[in-house]
Amino acid sequence: MATLVPILTSEQEAAHPRVKAVMDDIRKVRGSDFINNFWTYLAQANPENPVLLENTWAEVKQVMLAPSALDPVTKEMIYIAVSVANSCAYCVHSHTAAATAKGMSNTQHAELLGIVALAGKTNQIANALQVPVDSAFLK
Amino acid sequence: MATLVPILTSEQEAAHPRVKAVMDDIRKVRGSDFINNFWTYLAQANPENPVLLENTWAEVKQVMLAPSALDPVTKEMIYIAVSVANSCAYCVHSHTAAATAKGMSNTQHAELLGIVALAGKTNQIANALQVPVDSAFLK
Amino acid sequence: MATLVPILTSEQEAAHPRVKAVMDDIRKVRGSDFINNFWTYLAQANPENPVLLENTWAEVKQVMLAPSALDPVTKEMIYIAVSVANSCAYCVHSHTAAATAKGMSNTQHAELLGIVALAGKTNQIANALQVPVDSAFLK
Amino acid sequence: MATLVPILTSEQEAAHPRVKAVMDDIRKVRGSDFINNFWTYLAQANPENPVLLENTWAEVKQVMLAPSALDPVTKEMIYIAVSVANSCAYCVHSHTAAATAKGMSNTQHAELLGIVALAGKTNQIANALQVPVDSAFLK
Amino acid sequence: MATLVPILTSEQEAAHPRVKAVMDDIRKVRGSDFINNFWTYLAQANPENPVLLENTWAEVKQVMLAPSALDPVTKEMIYIAVSVANSCAYCVHSHTAAATAKGMSNTQHAELLGIVALAGKTNQIANALQVPVDSAFLK
Amino acid sequence: MATLVPILTSEQEAAHPRVKAVMDDIRKVRGSDFINNFWTYLAQANPENPVLLENTWAEVKQVMLAPSALDPVTKEMIYIAVSVANSCAYCVHSHTAAATAKGMSNTQHAELLGIVALAGKTNQIANALQVPVDSAFLK
Repeated sequence: MATLVPILTSEQEAAHPRVKAVMDDIRKVRGSDFINNFWTYLAQANPENPVLLENTWAEVKQVMLAPSALDPVTKEMIYIAVSVANSCAYCVHSHTAAATAKGMSNTQHAELLGIVALAGKTNQIANALQVPVDSAFLK
Repeated sequence: MATLVPILTSEQEAAHPRVKAVMDDIRKVRGSDFINNFWTYLAQANPENPVLLENTWAEVKQVMLAPSALDPVTKEMIYIAVSVANSCAYCVHSHTAAATAKGMSNTQHAELLGIVALAGKTNQIANALQVPVDSAFLK
Repeated sequence: MATLVPILTSEQEAAHPRVKAVMDDIRKVRGSDFINNFWTYLAQANPENPVLLENTWAEVKQVMLAPSALDPVTKEMIYIAVSVANSCAYCVHSHTAAATAKGMSNTQHAELLGIVALAGKTNQIANALQVPVDSAFLK
Repeated sequence: MATLVPILTSEQEAAHPRVKAVMDDIRKVRGSDFINNFWTYLAQANPENPVLLENTWAEVKQVMLAPSALDPVTKEMIYIAVSVANSCAYCVHSHTAAATAKGMSNTQHAELLGIVALAGKTNQIANALQVPVDSAFLK
Repeated sequence: MATLVPILTSEQEAAHPRVKAVMDDIRKVRGSDFINNFWTYLAQANPENPVLLENTWAEVKQVMLAPSALDPVTKEMIYIAVSVANSCAYCVHSHTAAATAKGMSNTQHAELLGIVALAGKTNQIANALQVPVDSAFLK
Repeated sequence: MATLVPILTSEQEAAHPRVKAVMDDIRKVRGSDFINNFWTYLAQANPENPVLLENTWAEVKQVMLAPSALDPVTKEMIYIAVSVANSCAYCVHSHTAAATAKGMSNTQHAELLGIVALAGKTNQIANALQVPVDSAFLK
C-alpha cells in the first residue's frame, strides 16, 4: 500500500500497456482527462497483471454506460442505494457525483434519500422481528 | 415473541382500534384483503401502543405510494437494492413481489441484478484499497 | 459440516473432556439441561481443540452473566441491536428469547424495536449524505 | 451535493419556513444554539419540501427524547450498538456524545463496548456455522 | 420470481444456447452433472440475455479455479470470510462445501472460524471507538 | 471519548499496572516500541478494569500469532477479507500493513482483492435472487 499515489504518471502508464489501455479508454469514454482515484488505485494494486482493472472497467461500461432499459440516472441511484447500505464512503461520493453529472435533480436525490431511509428502517424491523416470508411471495 | 401468529384475527383487530385502523387502511389502499406478515408482526409487537406501526405505514404511503418524481417501479428497485445489501431476506422477497406487481419487467429486474452485483464488487474493492475520496467530489 | 447434528450425545461429550467441561458448565450456570444449537455446533466444529468454544463461553459469562453496572435485560437488548444490524437471524432469535427469559417486557421490546428502526433510518441518511463529523464531537 | 455547507445561515432558514420550524424546535428542545451537521445536511438536501427532515426529527423526539420505559442512556447505548454494527461513523460519534451528555458513565461505556465486541464475535460464528434456529426459540 | 425452479430442464437449456453453453462448461470444468442453485437461478433471471451469468462464471473460473499464487483452499477460505461478514447464507453454505471438497481440513476450518470471530470482535471495537488510522499505516 | 489521546504516556501506563502489562507484552511480542492506536484507544476506554483489552490481546496472540495450521499471511488475508466486508476502515489499514509486514506479496494482495471483489458480487446476487440452499449442502 505504501507506494500508492493518487495519480498515475505518464511514465507509469507507459510502462504498463494494459493499464494504459484502460486509462485511455476511460478518458475517451468520458471525454475528460480526469480519472478518479478508484481507477488509479486499482491500477496500481497490480499493474503487471491488471485483470481485475480490465474486467471491472468492462463491467462498468456494460452495466452502467451502455444504453439499456433503465435510464442512466436510475442506474446511478440504484448504485448509490447499494453503496449507502454497504457503508462505502468512496462509492457514495463518486456515484452521487456521477448521478448529478448525469442529471439527477434535487427532487430525485431527495426521493432517493427518503427511500433509502425507509428501507433502512424496515430492514431493521423485519430483521428484529424475524418476520417469516409469506408463502404468497415464494410461489 | 411466543404469541406471534401470522394472521391477526378480527377479534384481535377489534380489540385494538388503532391497529384495526392501520390494517383497514392497508386493505383499502391496496384494494386487497391480503396483508403480508411484516404488518401483522409489527402490529402484534405492540398492539397497545402501535406508534411504530402507524408511523411506518404512513411513511410507506408517503414515500412509496404517493405520486412523485420517481415512478413506482424505480422506487421499488431502489428499495430492493438497499434490502439486498442489508441482507434482509424478508424485504428482498416482499419488495421484489411489489416491484413485479407494479410492472417491473424481466429486463429491468435483470438490469437491477447487474447493478447490484457490480456495486457489491466495487464497494468491496474501494473498501479493500481504502481509496481516498477525490477532492473533486468534495467541493 | 456434514457430520453436524444439533445434539451432542453423551458419548461424544465423554470422548472430549474439554467440550464436556464447557457443556457441564453451561448446564450448571443456566440450571437447565437445554443447550441451544450455537454451543453444540461450535463444540462440533473443533472437538479436539475447543479453544474458541472455551473462550467464547468464558466471555459470555463475564460480559453477559456476571453482575455489572448494566442490568441483564439492558445487556440483552444491546446484544439484540447488534445482531439485528448484522443480520444474524440465529442471534436475534436466541437473544430475544434470552431477553424475554430475563424479564424484558413487551413495552421494552417495543421500545427496542423503535430505536433499532430509527437508528437504521438515520444510519442510512448519514451514510447517504456523507455527513462530516462535527468538530464538537471530536475534541 | 456541491452546495452543502455545515451551517445554515439565518437567511437560508428564513427562506424556508418549514426548515426554520424544525431548526427552532431542535434549539428549543435541546436548549442550545448548537445544531449538529446531521440536521443541517438533511435540511439542505431538500429545503423546498423537508418532509424527511420533519418526520425524522419528530421520530427522534418520540423515540429518544420522550420519557418512556427505557432511560435515556439505555436508549442511546442501543442506538450506538446499531450504528457500530452498521459502520456509521457519524452516528457513532454523535450518539456517543449524546450518551455522554445524558450521563453514560465510563463503566457503562466500557460494558457497551464489551457487549458489542462479543456480539460481533458470536454473530460471525453463527453466520459461519449457519447454526439453525432451535425450535425452542420459534414457538 | 414466480417461475423460478431449482433445475433447468434440457428443453429450457436447449431454448437458450448461451445459457446452455455456460451450464455445459460448468459441468465440464467440475466433471459433474450437479449444478448448484446459484447458477440455475442466475440463468433463469435473464435467459434471453445471460450476460451476468456469463461474466460471473468467467470470473469464478479466472479467480477461483485457475492455478495461481494462492492455493484453492486458501481462496475458498477468503471467500467464506467475506460471505460470513456479508451474512450471505447461501454463499457460506456453498463455499464451505467447496472448501471441504477441495481439501480444507477440520483444523483449517476451525482456524478460519477463530479468525472470523476475532475479526468480527475487533471490527466492532474499532468502529465503536472510532479509532483513527495511525499515520504509520498511511504512508 | 473526550480524553482520548493516541499515545499513552508512561505516567498513564504506570498508574494502571494491568494496562502496562498488556502494553509491555505487545512491545515484547512485536519487538518494537510502536503501539498502534487500536490498543491505546482500547486501553483508555477502561483503564481501571481492562478486561476487554486483556482478553482481546490474548485472543490475537492465540489466533493470529501462535504457530498453527495456517501460515501468518493467510491468516491476515482472511482477517482483511472480513474487515473489508464489515467496512472497518481502521482494520483494513492495520491488517493490510500487518500482512505486508509478514510477507504478503503484491501478487497475493492482488488475488485477495480479486476474491473479495468476486465474493462481494456473488453475495449480492445470491441475496437478490434469494437462492435457496441446495439440499446437497445441508446433509
